[in-house]
Amino acid sequence: MIIVPGTSQGSLDFARNLAEKLGVGLAKVYHKVFPDGESYVRIEEEALDTAVIVQTMSSPQNKSIIEAMLLADAAKGLGAKRIVLVSPYLAYARQDKRFLQGEPVSIAVVLRALYHSGIRALYTIEIHKEEALSAFPGKALSIYPYEYMSEKIGITKDHILLAPDVGALRRVEYLAKKLGAQYDYLVKKRDRLTGEIVLEPKHLMVKGKDVIIIDDIISTGGTVSKAAKLLLEQGANNVYVLVAHALLVDNAIEKLKTAGVRKVYAANTLSPVENAYNLVEYIDVSELVAEELSREL
Amino acid sequence: MIIVPGTSQGSLDFARNLAEKLGVGLAKVYHKVFPDGESYVRIEEEALDTAVIVQTMSSPQNKSIIEAMLLADAAKGLGAKRIVLVSPYLAYARQDKRFLQGEPVSIAVVLRALYHSGIRALYTIEIHKEEALSAFPGKALSIYPYEYMSEKIGITKDHILLAPDVGALRRVEYLAKKLGAQYDYLVKKRDRLTGEIVLEPKHLMVKGKDVIIIDDIISTGGTVSKAAKLLLEQGANNVYVLVAHALLVDNAIEKLKTAGVRKVYAANTLSPVENAYNLVEYIDVSELVAEELSREL
Repeated sequence: MIIVPGTSQGSLDFARNLAEKLGVGLAKVYHKVFPDGESYVRIEEEALDTAVIVQTMSSPQNKSIIEAMLLADAAKGLGAKRIVLVSPYLAYARQDKRFLQGEPVSIAVVLRALYHSGIRALYTIEIHKEEALSAFPGKALSIYPYEYMSEKIGITKDHILLAPDVGALRRVEYLAKKLGAQYDYLVKKRDRLTGEIVLEPKHLMVKGKDVIIIDDIISTGGTVSKAAKLLLEQGANNVYVLVAHALLVDNAIEKLKTAGVRKVYAANTLSPVENAYNLVEYIDVSELVAEELSREL
Repeated sequence: MIIVPGTSQGSLDFARNLAEKLGVGLAKVYHKVFPDGESYVRIEEEALDTAVIVQTMSSPQNKSIIEAMLLADAAKGLGAKRIVLVSPYLAYARQDKRFLQGEPVSIAVVLRALYHSGIRALYTIEIHKEEALSAFPGKALSIYPYEYMSEKIGITKDHILLAPDVGALRRVEYLAKKLGAQYDYLVKKRDRLTGEIVLEPKHLMVKGKDVIIIDDIISTGGTVSKAAKLLLEQGANNVYVLVAHALLVDNAIEKLKTAGVRKVYAANTLSPVENAYNLVEYIDVSELVAEELSREL
């Protein structure tokens, strides 16, 4: 087995951690963009057996996806018998059904394309909705990082765990039961056409408590900021965030800080964002992937 | 049949021309990019029968490719019985084999991905090497625009037709024989590692003649500029360029102008580039695609 570091931002670091934990080598990959904008990749190895490509689908997502496919085909050309993709963050996971008529199921499109480039097994961290993986014709696994991360952070039964919407409840419920902690959720409504999010206020037993909002993705930070404000208004002591994928685009950091969030704990599925207030703490979850991958060895 | 205009630069214009020539309707397509960089598309129609998506793979190519796939899946969701892709310019066509060990066959990766998004027939203009289309499991056709374009321009048997390298000779030979014109080719060598191009000087019978350089793609204009200089040094009267895909990136226009090129005739497979010297003249080739597509009606 060899780890093939991908071309997208954040992939090389994750690949290095993974190779170290597994005690396997790291392939040499050359990549560039031609003057016209086409991507070029080359795996600088003589031959491959099991190739584990590590490509997180960070922005620009479409480039990351296509380059993962090019790497898979390059591995095929080098005689790889099994091509595995580790994609700590899989883009397009939230478009997992046709919410409106005329929409694509984007994640299914991406998963099928990855498979047909030669990838036969796929490991990702928290794919939003696990059912989405059924579109991938090979072996596919979504790894939940929350329990591992909560141990590293030191979350206890005295914390209150909060899901920002009912869809996120399952992951909070599982962890809360493990810890013996209290948990709750907010009612979130998203207008599918305008994209605007409304949180329905609801009385939560958070007075004097430390609350951890747990979610899979923070993008612009809108939902979590609204939730944090609501919790602090209702007397919460401190509000923390535990998240798998910290996209944190636009002025998300500013928004979270203003809303009163004390700390965002994020898995290292994406590169660290520029972070003026030291608000985000990254937790390396490559060990979780290494455990699963060791079964492929 | 309905024409579904694509999301990439240049696609809507081509789609409109095509719909007009076929006398069929144009679907309404909504598309945007989310703050995090993911693409979103929606076909705003009730139901589809035969859907002809027009998506040229202009820069950013990876976005154009993924969005074509998303449109195909959206069409599938609307019940389309046959999904056809018209891609006037197909990106990645030049990476049609493993020139170096460890490289992917990029065009094959792209064609397979397009097929598995639901596209069953593919029409393109001049795919560099026709054999590349064999990677597409459905019906695929590369349409040669040179004869049609040469009629529009008024190329006669008194012109000399020139291929900038031996690989481009076949397309020049075919047209020259049709016109009864003289033709020749230059010996081009490309260092696969550095990408540098060297033209081997060779005595050409161009003195006092109008020469038309014919090629499939102009990217940075390096090869054609070198060819034009060589031809003018050897006494050519005027040097013109006939090209299917005018990418014209970086300072290509400047380079071609300085080299003495009088006019670049390009098919409208890509949007017009900013063009200070009025050097490029675009020729609408949608009629050629309409002729082929009318067999699908």
